[in-house]
Amino acid sequence: MKVPGFGLSDKALRTREQPISYLMAAAVGNPDLISLAAGLVDYESLPIEVSHSLSGQILQDAKAGRIALQYGTTPGLKQLREALLAHLCKMEECEAADLGLTADNCVVTAGSQQALYIISDLLVNPGDIVITSAPTYFVYTGTLSSLGAEVLTVPMDDSGMRTDLLEELLEDLERTGRLDRVKIIYEVSYYQNPSGLSLSTERREHMVRLARRFSKHHRILVIDDAAYRELRYDGPTWPGIKRFDPENRFTATCMTFSKPFAAGYKTGYAFLPDDLVDPFLQQKGNHDFGSCNFAQHLIHRALNDGTYQTHVEKVRAAYRLKRDAMVDALAECMGDLRDEVSWTRPSGGLYVWLTLPECIDTGRDQWLFGRCLEKGVLYVPGAYCYASDPAPINRIRLSYGVVDPTSIREGVRRLAAAVREALQHDPATGRGGAARSQPTA
Amino acid sequence: MKVPGFGLSDKALRTREQPISYLMAAAVGNPDLISLAAGLVDYESLPIEVSHSLSGQILQDAKAGRIALQYGTTPGLKQLREALLAHLCKMEECEAADLGLTADNCVVTAGSQQALYIISDLLVNPGDIVITSAPTYFVYTGTLSSLGAEVLTVPMDDSGMRTDLLEELLEDLERTGRLDRVKIIYEVSYYQNPSGLSLSTERREHMVRLARRFSKHHRILVIDDAAYRELRYDGPTWPGIKRFDPENRFTATCMTFSKPFAAGYKTGYAFLPDDLVDPFLQQKGNHDFGSCNFAQHLIHRALNDGTYQTHVEKVRAAYRLKRDAMVDALAECMGDLRDEVSWTRPSGGLYVWLTLPECIDTGRDQWLFGRCLEKGVLYVPGAYCYASDPAPINRIRLSYGVVDPTSIREGVRRLAAAVREALQHDPATGRGGAARSQPTA
Repeated sequence: MKVPGFGLSDKALRTREQPISYLMAAAVGNPDLISLAAGLVDYESLPIEVSHSLSGQILQDAKAGRIALQYGTTPGLKQLREALLAHLCKMEECEAADLGLTADNCVVTAGSQQALYIISDLLVNPGDIVITSAPTYFVYTGTLSSLGAEVLTVPMDDSGMRTDLLEELLEDLERTGRLDRVKIIYEVSYYQNPSGLSLSTERREHMVRLARRFSKHHRILVIDDAAYRELRYDGPTWPGIKRFDPENRFTATCMTFSKPFAAGYKTGYAFLPDDLVDPFLQQKGNHDFGSCNFAQHLIHRALNDGTYQTHVEKVRAAYRLKRDAMVDALAECMGDLRDEVSWTRPSGGLYVWLTLPECIDTGRDQWLFGRCLEKGVLYVPGAYCYASDPAPINRIRLSYGVVDPTSIREGVRRLAAAVREALQHDPATGRGGAARSQPTA
Repeated sequence: MKVPGFGLSDKALRTREQPISYLMAAAVGNPDLISLAAGLVDYESLPIEVSHSLSGQILQDAKAGRIALQYGTTPGLKQLREALLAHLCKMEECEAADLGLTADNCVVTAGSQQALYIISDLLVNPGDIVITSAPTYFVYTGTLSSLGAEVLTVPMDDSGMRTDLLEELLEDLERTGRLDRVKIIYEVSYYQNPSGLSLSTERREHMVRLARRFSKHHRILVIDDAAYRELRYDGPTWPGIKRFDPENRFTATCMTFSKPFAAGYKTGYAFLPDDLVDPFLQQKGNHDFGSCNFAQHLIHRALNDGTYQTHVEKVRAAYRLKRDAMVDALAECMGDLRDEVSWTRPSGGLYVWLTLPECIDTGRDQWLFGRCLEKGVLYVPGAYCYASDPAPINRIRLSYGVVDPTSIREGVRRLAAAVREALQHDPATGRGGAARSQPTA
């Protein structure tokens, strides 16, 4: 019998495989491959002793254990949400009232990704506009495509999204009668994925001011994806974008324990404006009516007894070494190419952003990517990080998250060797020499 | 400055608060209240010792601990999915090939609710039709409303959904040119929430046959919500609906560890047809790119070393006593009203379904509900469990999940006293006496 296919929904038809899945599949079967692509976190600094101690405390106490193994609530453990608010206030060096927040504005989610998903789903109808910087976090733009959003991008520089250009874009959208479609401005404001760069304080203030000014048809929400905020190694600090929204009207802040603590607990959180809380919880009620309760109890204890804070320091120290390993290796292996090759030196987070000459296409079906696989190193082609065409073809996202320092250095050496070959390589003939005089971009 | 509201998406506007939230809120502030409404699980039988032992095994082994605290994968831990397939095969007493399944058909989810959400989101455009029995699980029908589905219902009897009437409905939809909108047939096939009743074997086969026969425009999916399957106390057993779909084309089976093990791990799973797996994972990639990894490692160990199976026996024994406590108390307190009041005797699951005379409205704004709150007992008004109007007004869902046997008996006593008063009560005057001769329904 001929069996017809399923009648997939419009949304399912719009949803594409995340590009990272392809990359991960490419890595399978080569145990010697060094992945500078994976967004995984450092194994060595994962809190196994801390977790053993805290889970023991919970499960040896019959009452505490039973509460942790029972269903939680849709918004998440109340005491945890109170601790998260206190945690945010400590980072902001202010009172909750200065941010217009109470613990009821806090929701606990399945990582920060679920917060990004639900907030966007609450606001975006197909055809609505979300503005991001270019480049930006590609998992989120994949989600936006699935929701049918039109993603408009604003260039960034070393100080994050160019808010002067954001202002021009919003003025242009107003002039052309499309301002009513703008729902969200999204920024990874600390040590951005993929560039490692942060939004300057002035631009944080400017971004909120623009959201307020252009909230004419409805309110425009600034999503501050602060996933990497706590992974600071050196350099300046910045207030959260919400600091410039003292009445908590125009900003949602999304954070996670996946990076500073343990990805395995899949626990994130968000601070929302008052009138988004109930709509958010109604959606989350339909998704899962509450995230892993056991993980919430464990994280609550970690925050409360200070082991979390101690652990974050340890994580920072580990990543600082790895950041140094990557940046030092880049200088060592490609320092002489500084006229043609440049990279960021992040003061936090997990990513270095590499810019090659425009004649080198870093795409997964191109020569360089294949050569790197042969040499045993995997990177994320930068084009994935651009939500709108034409995307620059000559960028690379490198992560020092999961790989140990020795492998970071070896991975960079392999990459640099492939780049040197590419600079000599003629993509037309497959032989060396002409690429630099015959740019393909 | 006047601040406009957010421009909520059509979906957000369609999404309503789950009725259970209101009920839970009603319970706050009355510590003496006995909730026969809550769908929580038994505290006493939660696996705290088992969890302590297993988490200790994982976290004392540096390598195992690090893997469990790292990110997992979107489909879930491969070894767990293999164990889940073996677990299903053991329940079905057959080989995986007899079900057309491999471990790649299995996805691990944030409870079975996430599986229900994503499967439905994959298939349903606003205006599409999902068919459920009446009554059915109200959290799922709330999700369907949020997705914009039209929910059509088929009456049930003691053997579950009346598939003869399902056949008539499908024929009618075909005749009226609406068959192309039918995407899903949903059934809680074991110890249904809310009725406690199960779908007979004949009807399981018939349901799949109907899905196959009416898959003319596209394939119609039968969702077998088997959340309560493992909570069997006595009585017959039934094969899973998927047993009648040996090529794994027309059925998705959703299960959970929340009921038989620990709700606090928020871990469920589903077995999907081949061509739904990738679309499902793409959606899940956008939701959270994988559920709590630590919980998956823990559950995998529990399944593998047999502690899960031992624990389920303990859980069954505990609920069997509680089921008996509730059914015995109903007989004791309302046995003399058997002409007017009836209830189910479930052979598994967590729910008893009570039918009062048609003159008694059990709704939350009605006399009986208020009187029960005064007396200190909470129930779920049966009307919530009907997705389409007019809903019977005289039903009640009682749960013996979370309450201890003594409180179950006391709760039933309080409820019975209120029902006796209602039978004497005149809703027009607020005084007793006339309700039985002046039905309000």
